[in-house]
Amino acid sequence: MSTIGFEELINKYTTVLFDCDGVLWRGNELIPGSKEFIDHLRKHNKRLIFVTNNASQSREQYRTKFQKFGLDVSTDEIYGSAYAATVYLKYKLKSKKAFVIGMSGLEHELDTEGIEHIGGTSEEYNKLTTDIDFKGIKDSIDPSVDTVLCGMDLMLNYSKLSHAFSYLENKNVNFVLTNDDSTFPQSAGIFPGSGSLSAPLILASGRTPTVVGKPNKEMLDCILDKNHLNNEETLMIGDRLNTDIKFGQEGGLDTLLVLSGVSKREDIEKENIYPKYILNSLDDLN
Amino acid sequence: MSTIGFEELINKYTTVLFDCDGVLWRGNELIPGSKEFIDHLRKHNKRLIFVTNNASQSREQYRTKFQKFGLDVSTDEIYGSAYAATVYLKYKLKSKKAFVIGMSGLEHELDTEGIEHIGGTSEEYNKLTTDIDFKGIKDSIDPSVDTVLCGMDLMLNYSKLSHAFSYLENKNVNFVLTNDDSTFPQSAGIFPGSGSLSAPLILASGRTPTVVGKPNKEMLDCILDKNHLNNEETLMIGDRLNTDIKFGQEGGLDTLLVLSGVSKREDIEKENIYPKYILNSLDDLN
Repeated sequence: MSTIGFEELINKYTTVLFDCDGVLWRGNELIPGSKEFIDHLRKHNKRLIFVTNNASQSREQYRTKFQKFGLDVSTDEIYGSAYAATVYLKYKLKSKKAFVIGMSGLEHELDTEGIEHIGGTSEEYNKLTTDIDFKGIKDSIDPSVDTVLCGMDLMLNYSKLSHAFSYLENKNVNFVLTNDDSTFPQSAGIFPGSGSLSAPLILASGRTPTVVGKPNKEMLDCILDKNHLNNEETLMIGDRLNTDIKFGQEGGLDTLLVLSGVSKREDIEKENIYPKYILNSLDDLN
Repeated sequence: MSTIGFEELINKYTTVLFDCDGVLWRGNELIPGSKEFIDHLRKHNKRLIFVTNNASQSREQYRTKFQKFGLDVSTDEIYGSAYAATVYLKYKLKSKKAFVIGMSGLEHELDTEGIEHIGGTSEEYNKLTTDIDFKGIKDSIDPSVDTVLCGMDLMLNYSKLSHAFSYLENKNVNFVLTNDDSTFPQSAGIFPGSGSLSAPLILASGRTPTVVGKPNKEMLDCILDKNHLNNEETLMIGDRLNTDIKFGQEGGLDTLLVLSGVSKREDIEKENIYPKYILNSLDDLN
């Protein structure tokens, strides 16, 4: 592991893959230096790809988030796990209809690719009550649902979990997670992430889901299908060893860990994942 | 493993421990033969103890459930995991205030023992919204909360999980589960159980909770503190190998598996847990 300066980076890499949360921003706060670094890269005509496991937002919603921070990024440069999961459902699973644990961003990506969905943000699946209609849940099973798709869901509730579980009782129904990050970092602190929210379904059903997001192959496949990356000229920048850095390494890319997010310096030895470069934050590159 | 007849049972055992869900009833339906069997045991002056991991109800609420089925059982004969967890908090942890993921039954047991609690059924923790006040959650941390107590909660939601997680970030706060049954059998079918509902907290926090309910020692300690059982004269009847039968065996009791609930005959070899006796249901003893 070593540090890296801006000149070296510019000379060595034509493409930079960024994780977003913990690298560019943290919750609703821009991390100082991110904007300047991206502007510098643009001036040097580098290809930028923004990869995020956050499945609560569609690429379009994500673009708006970039704009809010003053970062000019196009939808084509953004690869979210909601989008990657949708691509996986459509082209790998040939899925027609999904039961969703997730938010409007995930539903929007499914809509864009013409995959029908129930659950998610629909009012009937988002009621809090102790008077659960257990028989009604089993009776409501829609035989055309072929996939249970789980992402981040701030409206997660027992009734929605019970519907999803009831679909998973049928072993022919696919079980897919957008990503399995156990935590959801916000500017106020750490909160349970989508990888934790699907844990009840994994435990109760005894099934193992396919996970699309970083560090898994499905996410990389989605990026590679659209971009011809030269591995040696591509750098992956992230704040999590076991997702971002592992993702870059498994794709044969050089990796840079920034300490502005989840992973700390002492985690490197613990997790036995060694990035090529390490910096406190992107600001060190300005 | 063998079957057992009523005469043999009567001659051999003075005390019978029952699991309830899957043995006496399933959801809201009485399993045929349960009432007659209990009546027969009463006529022979056997001591009956009803042990349940279901933490959604207090002993008093459970007694009402027995009554609804025409079963006359006293509160003192009932050992629920809500009660056992409360006893554990009070006497082992000396807990004064708990953050609860759970229902009114659990809160009622805590009230009875004078343990303060927040979370649970309080309106402020039971709102479904995508507009989560992340900072508000961290700011609301009550330093007098010394325990996060999780049981069955049909109103489980992301906001409540986030509060619980935020308490668990403090390693001095105890982490206790009433039970870890992964499923919650109802007459309509199987649903996610309290053991599944606490999985997000275990995964996100990386902490290992103390589990009170069957098959764990804390539940047995709670029963033994109040009853002097002669192991050789006590029979444990249950429908789950990995909770009921394991519980009986670890307490040195003879065990009887009934196939009217969760475990199937083929699970015995899979789980490598061998009950002493096996019957289709309690009706075989009438």
